[in-house]
Amino acid sequence: MPTNVIILAAGQGTRMQSDLPKVLHEVAGAPLLAHAMSAAETLSPEACTIVAGHGAEAVEAVARQMDETVRIAIQEERLGTGHAVRQALPEGTAMEGDTLVLYGDTPFIRAATLERMLEARRAGAAVVVLGFHAADPGRYGRLVVEEGRLERIVEYKEASEAERAIDFCNSGVICADSALLPGLLAEIGNDNAAGEYYLTDIVAHARARGLDVAAVSCDEAETLGINSRADLARAEAAFQAAARAASLELGVTLQAPETVHFSLDTVIGRDVLIEPNVVFGPGVTVETGARIRAFSHLEGCHVSRGAIVGPYARLRPGAELAEDVRVGNFVEIKNATIDEGAKVNHLSYVGDASVGAGANIGAGTVTCNYDGVMKHRTEIGAGAFIGSSTMLVAPVSVGAEAMTGSGSVITEDVPSGALAIGRARQTNKPNLARRLMARLKAQKAKRTH
Amino acid sequence: MPTNVIILAAGQGTRMQSDLPKVLHEVAGAPLLAHAMSAAETLSPEACTIVAGHGAEAVEAVARQMDETVRIAIQEERLGTGHAVRQALPEGTAMEGDTLVLYGDTPFIRAATLERMLEARRAGAAVVVLGFHAADPGRYGRLVVEEGRLERIVEYKEASEAERAIDFCNSGVICADSALLPGLLAEIGNDNAAGEYYLTDIVAHARARGLDVAAVSCDEAETLGINSRADLARAEAAFQAAARAASLELGVTLQAPETVHFSLDTVIGRDVLIEPNVVFGPGVTVETGARIRAFSHLEGCHVSRGAIVGPYARLRPGAELAEDVRVGNFVEIKNATIDEGAKVNHLSYVGDASVGAGANIGAGTVTCNYDGVMKHRTEIGAGAFIGSSTMLVAPVSVGAEAMTGSGSVITEDVPSGALAIGRARQTNKPNLARRLMARLKAQKAKRTH
Amino acid sequence: MPTNVIILAAGQGTRMQSDLPKVLHEVAGAPLLAHAMSAAETLSPEACTIVAGHGAEAVEAVARQMDETVRIAIQEERLGTGHAVRQALPEGTAMEGDTLVLYGDTPFIRAATLERMLEARRAGAAVVVLGFHAADPGRYGRLVVEEGRLERIVEYKEASEAERAIDFCNSGVICADSALLPGLLAEIGNDNAAGEYYLTDIVAHARARGLDVAAVSCDEAETLGINSRADLARAEAAFQAAARAASLELGVTLQAPETVHFSLDTVIGRDVLIEPNVVFGPGVTVETGARIRAFSHLEGCHVSRGAIVGPYARLRPGAELAEDVRVGNFVEIKNATIDEGAKVNHLSYVGDASVGAGANIGAGTVTCNYDGVMKHRTEIGAGAFIGSSTMLVAPVSVGAEAMTGSGSVITEDVPSGALAIGRARQTNKPNLARRLMARLKAQKAKRTH
Repeated sequence: MPTNVIILAAGQGTRMQSDLPKVLHEVAGAPLLAHAMSAAETLSPEACTIVAGHGAEAVEAVARQMDETVRIAIQEERLGTGHAVRQALPEGTAMEGDTLVLYGDTPFIRAATLERMLEARRAGAAVVVLGFHAADPGRYGRLVVEEGRLERIVEYKEASEAERAIDFCNSGVICADSALLPGLLAEIGNDNAAGEYYLTDIVAHARARGLDVAAVSCDEAETLGINSRADLARAEAAFQAAARAASLELGVTLQAPETVHFSLDTVIGRDVLIEPNVVFGPGVTVETGARIRAFSHLEGCHVSRGAIVGPYARLRPGAELAEDVRVGNFVEIKNATIDEGAKVNHLSYVGDASVGAGANIGAGTVTCNYDGVMKHRTEIGAGAFIGSSTMLVAPVSVGAEAMTGSGSVITEDVPSGALAIGRARQTNKPNLARRLMARLKAQKAKRTH
Repeated sequence: MPTNVIILAAGQGTRMQSDLPKVLHEVAGAPLLAHAMSAAETLSPEACTIVAGHGAEAVEAVARQMDETVRIAIQEERLGTGHAVRQALPEGTAMEGDTLVLYGDTPFIRAATLERMLEARRAGAAVVVLGFHAADPGRYGRLVVEEGRLERIVEYKEASEAERAIDFCNSGVICADSALLPGLLAEIGNDNAAGEYYLTDIVAHARARGLDVAAVSCDEAETLGINSRADLARAEAAFQAAARAASLELGVTLQAPETVHFSLDTVIGRDVLIEPNVVFGPGVTVETGARIRAFSHLEGCHVSRGAIVGPYARLRPGAELAEDVRVGNFVEIKNATIDEGAKVNHLSYVGDASVGAGANIGAGTVTCNYDGVMKHRTEIGAGAFIGSSTMLVAPVSVGAEAMTGSGSVITEDVPSGALAIGRARQTNKPNLARRLMARLKAQKAKRTH
Repeated sequence: MPTNVIILAAGQGTRMQSDLPKVLHEVAGAPLLAHAMSAAETLSPEACTIVAGHGAEAVEAVARQMDETVRIAIQEERLGTGHAVRQALPEGTAMEGDTLVLYGDTPFIRAATLERMLEARRAGAAVVVLGFHAADPGRYGRLVVEEGRLERIVEYKEASEAERAIDFCNSGVICADSALLPGLLAEIGNDNAAGEYYLTDIVAHARARGLDVAAVSCDEAETLGINSRADLARAEAAFQAAARAASLELGVTLQAPETVHFSLDTVIGRDVLIEPNVVFGPGVTVETGARIRAFSHLEGCHVSRGAIVGPYARLRPGAELAEDVRVGNFVEIKNATIDEGAKVNHLSYVGDASVGAGANIGAGTVTCNYDGVMKHRTEIGAGAFIGSSTMLVAPVSVGAEAMTGSGSVITEDVPSGALAIGRARQTNKPNLARRLMARLKAQKAKRTH
């Protein structure tokens, strides 16, 4: 049975106070929409349709980056969730299987929860609603379940006292029989204060037809929706708390868990030790036994076992650190392979480069990879010794076991085992420092008179 | 009606365990005294008098820096708040209008609260006391209000059980009729355990004269007084929590709000994204749409729309970043203008300088602005390309679209469009690196024998 | 009366998910075992025996590093705490005095608590058990005390309802008469579900002999045992919370206490101000009145009064900062003495060096201390002025009041008052930058066609 997924992502999110469409705000280094799309993807849906509206172009661009085959439907007018879903249905084509409606601003619904909704469909329900037991049900719509079936959804305003006592609340997520959905949507009206068509109303119409409707329950945390920056910060905090707990469970030491920030796809091995104040941007894997020291920032990089990173290491996309590498103390690595046991320990920039095993990169070294127009590569051989403040003007290579004198600008390749040096001879001018200082002080005294 | 403000700031704050007078400890990047003075200033008072005692010279210096016209009264002996206020009254001059008494160690009273106290004066009260409903009234003095009027203030020790049940407590802040205040103060005695004159006692004397006394209520958080470093840390945390919430409300994304530290005067525009671990010192404005990346530290600087700052950016006073500028990865900017779209992306120090639009500053560049006695300026033209590890020995200028070769020391001006280079030619000495290493290893082996 | 200490440290700690023996995981910068050994050491014990098992070699190495005289007993099979203690008793030698049994994974027991246990022994108890009043007694064994004497320890499973209502719980820490201990241990059996010998059972045998048994009470927090990474993180958090509170109490300002991380031996003077995000590794002392700015990382170093460290200062072992020194903005100091008032303010590495009073080290300076095989020293005299990006190729010395030109590579000693310079002359090539850029752009255009 094919599954169609529709993700509603048209809202402006006025309370976000933002020019960015709400679903493009990020949690855990990924747009809210990407979280919803990832959850949907685990179901291997036949089709996934994003209903965009506010900032549709930007939403479409991000959605296509995630999944080239995604369909985009445009909701020109914002006339409610029922209306939104209608925009996503193919006109005139009979559909079969399941249609699952998700929300682009609700990033935490688990794949297992969606699976359980599909199972409820397979068990015979024409419509399946996702509910949650709320700690504080407040003004949520209540799910009235009788004999295991969802009888109706009651809006808070219209609920009786007995119904208000129910803590099982409507998340808005719905899975319906694709064949029945167009008909059910056609029946719902907009005779309400907001003049909107509510998707939720298909439950009443399904029940009126005598169809079976089921409710599936999930954790309240999964249904967290984002409507403001404070919500966004809370969602980020919830994600981080879960990611930290999961890391601890897997055998990672976090000296101060609350100061370590993960991304959605961060992978950290067993017996990795992470000091306080570390940020993992997207695309990082760290192998077992590595140590990530304080104040390090990693993105799109790989750290192999036994490597020590930081403090103050900035690993940018394409940084590949082999085993037992050491990088830290104000060092930036970008798009560069650092082979086993090599060291880049102080105040250096290594970009678009390969550094051989056991090589030692002195303090203040720069791979000058940009000529103002193009980027070029630097190759450093195994066991090479790069003197402090060497400028490696790419494209350039330094052979294995070669050396460069500190302060040299290397513009030509250095053969293996050779010493390359490019520096002016030192001259000492006796007493000149004292005379210069005296003169400068006199000038200053004059000026301030 | 003129308003006179008196700020009591004479206390030593023994529990602070400090050589610094208590009111000079800082919250949100400003001395406690400055917070009280700022609140007072919103009333445009005719005069503001600081009653100093412990560390009076230091207190006076800080107060005058805030407001040159401030008056300083010295309380030689610490004989209570009533005595302190007496030191601040002009001798022999009849006063009119309102006199408002604030505390230098109570930084959070809102301007709107003080306004309400003045309104209560205008409505006829001779004395107005500021109270708060305490979550845990503990040993605070209780405000006994009857028929909308403050009847008396009862110290906890002397309170009946019924009075102790009152949760409306005395903050100590008082506003009184300036004409009556000297007389009321003259009537209070020091017949108590501490032998001190309590300002609070004027309430009883005013009531005894049949004068009207009113109580105005504020949030308990406004009355937070600082008596220890732990109180100071709590006050800072309270300020930060409020500042973070306000930023979120205004449409700023804080990925990890609890790791972002603001100052009193920080201004952040809408749709600014702030990553974890950012410190805003005093005097920072960030325009809409800028991004402040992790581990950045900003003070006295301006960041324009679309700029990306950090990670690891250190912006010091006088750093002015135009639109779409990029600064980060161990870069320090001080007293420098960086024009539109210019980039200072790695390991550089740019101080006392101007950098033209679209210029690219290579890694490891330093503006050598200090000759040991004076500071000098560096001017870099639009579209210039500064090679890595260029030393710009100020005063010096590099023209528009000029280049410098990496590793060059630039001591003379570079004309527009020219290439400046100052470097020794590279020489490769075949096999010398291998021979040198072998010799060094032999030496080491010898030494360790 | 001699005291023998036995520390049980044989467990694997399966739930730690680690290759490292559990007792070698660290809290506050020191292995758990070191915490237990430190507490024991305050009793000046005659002997201290570590019972090792899982990872015994690693455990022994760490233990010996703490205390060369420590004895190591190996528990080959893990047959319970009673069995473990038996491995630590000298065979065939009669012992006297007290034997105190501690746990290598329980780092927070206070010295004063152990003293109270010894006092209870001196007061006549043959065995003394350490208990705690649990907030949530859960499944802990209960201590049944009658008329001031410990009557028995009841396991939760076997406890009556009345016994389960007791909140006084068994910590496992025991102090016993050394002469009686072997006999008592010989009497305990392993007739239980796990087939283990429980040390706790000596209480029943002592009571059966009519001996006096006492219970001493401590804070529940002292008995926190570590069984998982989450426990480890909680223990670290508990240590940090206590260390922060203690610092505040002593007159240290922590602007954001929750972002400052201390080690076990950190010593911070009064009126030190610590900004947010500072990490103190082991071995740091900071004198009164110093300021530690944001994003600084200190290990094994000394900061004297009035010094300003950071932001972004990396002080490594052997960094000795005299009064009023300034170090910060991406600067690393290692094994170096910085004399009074000297400044290392930007992007520098100073290692294996001494810097004289009042010297000024320019941005981008590096002491090139490593030749690929050995480390060498750099000496910089008082009042010297090191130009930006000076490479000091050690061993080398720069005399007092000498200067180096920026961009110079200093390989020979510079006499006092002299100016050392080593740089190529600058040449300006008119219009070459423009021509070069045009050519590069043309090349790029070609390639992308």
